[in-house]
This record gives sequence, structure tokens and C-alpha cells, in this order.
Amino acid sequence: MRSRLRIVLVRPRDPNNIGASARAMKNFGFADLAVVAPWPPVWNEAVSAVNASDVLLNARRCATLAEAVADCTLVVGTADPGRFAGKSSITPAELATDLKGSDHLPALVFGSEKHGLTNDDLSHCHQLLSIPTVDGCPSMNLGQAVAICCYELRNETRRNEPGIEWATAGEIEAALALAMDVLGKTDFILPGNEAELRGKLRRSLLNRQLTKREVNTMCGALRRIGSKMQD
Amino acid sequence: MRSRLRIVLVRPRDPNNIGASARAMKNFGFADLAVVAPWPPVWNEAVSAVNASDVLLNARRCATLAEAVADCTLVVGTADPGRFAGKSSITPAELATDLKGSDHLPALVFGSEKHGLTNDDLSHCHQLLSIPTVDGCPSMNLGQAVAICCYELRNETRRNEPGIEWATAGEIEAALALAMDVLGKTDFILPGNEAELRGKLRRSLLNRQLTKREVNTMCGALRRIGSKMQD
Repeated sequence: MRSRLRIVLVRPRDPNNIGASARAMKNFGFADLAVVAPWPPVWNEAVSAVNASDVLLNARRCATLAEAVADCTLVVGTADPGRFAGKSSITPAELATDLKGSDHLPALVFGSEKHGLTNDDLSHCHQLLSIPTVDGCPSMNLGQAVAICCYELRNETRRNEPGIEWATAGEIEAALALAMDVLGKTDFILPGNEAELRGKLRRSLLNRQLTKREVNTMCGALRRIGSKMQD
Repeated sequence: MRSRLRIVLVRPRDPNNIGASARAMKNFGFADLAVVAPWPPVWNEAVSAVNASDVLLNARRCATLAEAVADCTLVVGTADPGRFAGKSSITPAELATDLKGSDHLPALVFGSEKHGLTNDDLSHCHQLLSIPTVDGCPSMNLGQAVAICCYELRNETRRNEPGIEWATAGEIEAALALAMDVLGKTDFILPGNEAELRGKLRRSLLNRQLTKREVNTMCGALRRIGSKMQD
């Protein structure tokens, strides 16, 4: 039985929050921490703290969010409830239910203390999650938000045998790159709209929870299409 | 509808934890914070922080735990799971279920970061609560433990009308004082065992969830017994 949950901190700004997140993970049996683009002095202060846990000392430091979640099959982005107004988001308890007995390697992604996740970060997420705080309250502290999610997910992220082979975020990113190449050979991509289009397409692929086999098929088709197109 | 939960921090040592506890309370709609015997420099640093919430600025500072919970009808003490080995403790989710629709004014009591609650502190508690962390992990950070409890109890501590009139901790403490006076007139109290006996008797009164009426009757009986005894 393995604890299958990766916690990803994107651009954390406070060494105490990095340490507190790692500590809460350890409290609830999680060990897989990735940190995206931390500011070097912040990172160094966090890992050199006398009480740094082994979770923190073993954390992976990644340049991009895409790299941090490349092998994950379900990427869940977090934000304050207000941030997701009009979008569909789930609670930690609902995520726990969804993960119960599932075959996913899930990642739970937290943004920086000041700005949260950017829209580009969110385009890498299959799903959005909010902790149900009261209206008009301040946003949650990062270390406390991580603690609540780890507490809620503690029993629902272990599995024995693999079942459905979901596509990983990295495999979908590779399919997206092929699709963008194909579209780049048409006038569908206009000067200036490439980044926006890439985000939209990524969201639309992630929304559908594709299997590894479906993504393989898609990539094969895209490669053949590309090779038949004029540059 | 009022949020009926008091958070009590006993001898907190870190201003950041006091601030983080108040912030988490605000996130989940709680406002009633009491702090027992904080070290003055720690307290002053916490309340003078630029981001101090109104929960913190309105917190009551008490000399003793008995004072902090005097008007509460259910006092729940927290500790790491290992601390309660062999004793019966509940989880935050179980407490949420117990409080659902109840007529209690509950207090949730957290000890200092270093030592937790003392046995004397615990003798003031009707019930014990542990957050279900994994074996052999470090103890939880105070601010994170408060956040998890507030998250779990956010929907279960509001009520409309009073129903059963439970005795408050202060009323039980008054009954205990009368009982100790009566016992003091016998040879049941030996030199040196008074504090231990007081703790045992308190625990035994709190274990039974007495109503206001039962405690009033008990006090009346103890007063009459006392007045008939020779000094």
C-alpha cells in the first residue's frame, strides 16, 4: 500500500509555510512533495531549518508546474472559494470520495501565499478545489490549507493494484505539443493568441480524463496529420 | 444562528501559532478565542502583528483554564494520539457528529507547543480528542491542529434554541469546591493527596455530563452536609 498523493507548492514565498506543509504531510503519511520555482533564499532557509522533516529534505525542486506533475494522472488546483466564482470546484471531502479506490496518481497544487495559482497554472489542472471557508474571510494560510487537505485525504489515496491506466499530465502535454504543431501549420493560430489557445486546449484535454491508450492514439493521429501537411 | 465553539490556547509559546489559530478560526466562522497564561512578550508580539485578525484582538486573556471554560458545558482537551494511549478519545469528525444539533457551548482546548496539556489541564475536560495522524510522526503544529478542528466543526456548532440545560464547567467547579470542603472535614483527605483527589473527583464529575439542575441539587446537598459537620 502506497500513499499516492503529491503535494505541489508553486512559487512559495515563506520558508515557514514550506516547512509547515512538509510537516503536515508527514503527520498524515504523505511523502511526495514537489516545489516549483521557489525563490532560492526562501528554499535554502526552509531546507536548512533545524526541524526540517525528511519529507522536505527529499522534496523535488522543479522549474515548471508541467514538470512537477508530468507523471500524475489527476491534477487538482486549489484556490479560495471566491477565486472560482462561476467555475465548478470540489471540496477536500469530495476529492477524498472521488479518490477512494481510484487508480489515479493525484497531485494537489497550491499557489503562492500572495497571488495563488495563475490562470496558466490552472490550465494544467484537471479539477479545481476550494476549502469551504466563510464569506468575506481572509484567505487561508498555506500551511494550514495543506494540513486540512492532507487530513481529509489521509485514508483515500492508497491502492493495491493498478486498474485503469489514466494518461499522465506529461503524456497530455506531449499530445498538446503535437496538436499545437499541427495547428501552427494552419492560420488557426494568429500572432499573439498562441499562449491563450494552448491554455484553452490543455484545459479541454484535461477536462475529459483521457486514458493512456486514448492519448497514444491521438498522438499517432496527430503525427500522421503533421507529416502530411506542408510547412 | 451563532457559532458556538470556544477555542482555548493554554500557555502558547509562539506568537505565529496564536496568530495562525485566530486566522483559521476566522476562516471557518468562529470568533470566541481565549488564551490562558500566555507569556507576556509572546502575547504582545501576537496582538501587535500587522495582520492580527479581529478574532485575536478580541481574544480573552485568562489566568487559568478553569476561568477560560467556566461558562462552557462541554470541554474537550486535545493531544497527540500517543498521549491518550489506553484512554478513550474521539476524532474531530466524531466531535462534529456529537455536536450536531446539541445544546452545548463547547470549548476545544489546546496545550503549549512543547508540552501539550498537563494532567491537571486534562482533569478540566469532559472528553479527549486526537487528530488521527500516522504512527511515529512528529506531533502536529498548533496552528495546523486548530485549523483542522475548525474545518471539521464548521457546520456543527450553530444552534437556534436552547434545549437541555447542561451544567457549565464553572458550576461543576463550584460543586467540586463544596465537595472538597466536606471531604476536608474528614480524614479522607490526607496531607499531600488533596490536588490528586481534586483532579480525580473533577474527572469523575465531568465524565457524567451533568445537567444544571443535577449540579444545583448536588450543591444544595453538599452545603447541608457541610453545615452539619464539625470543623
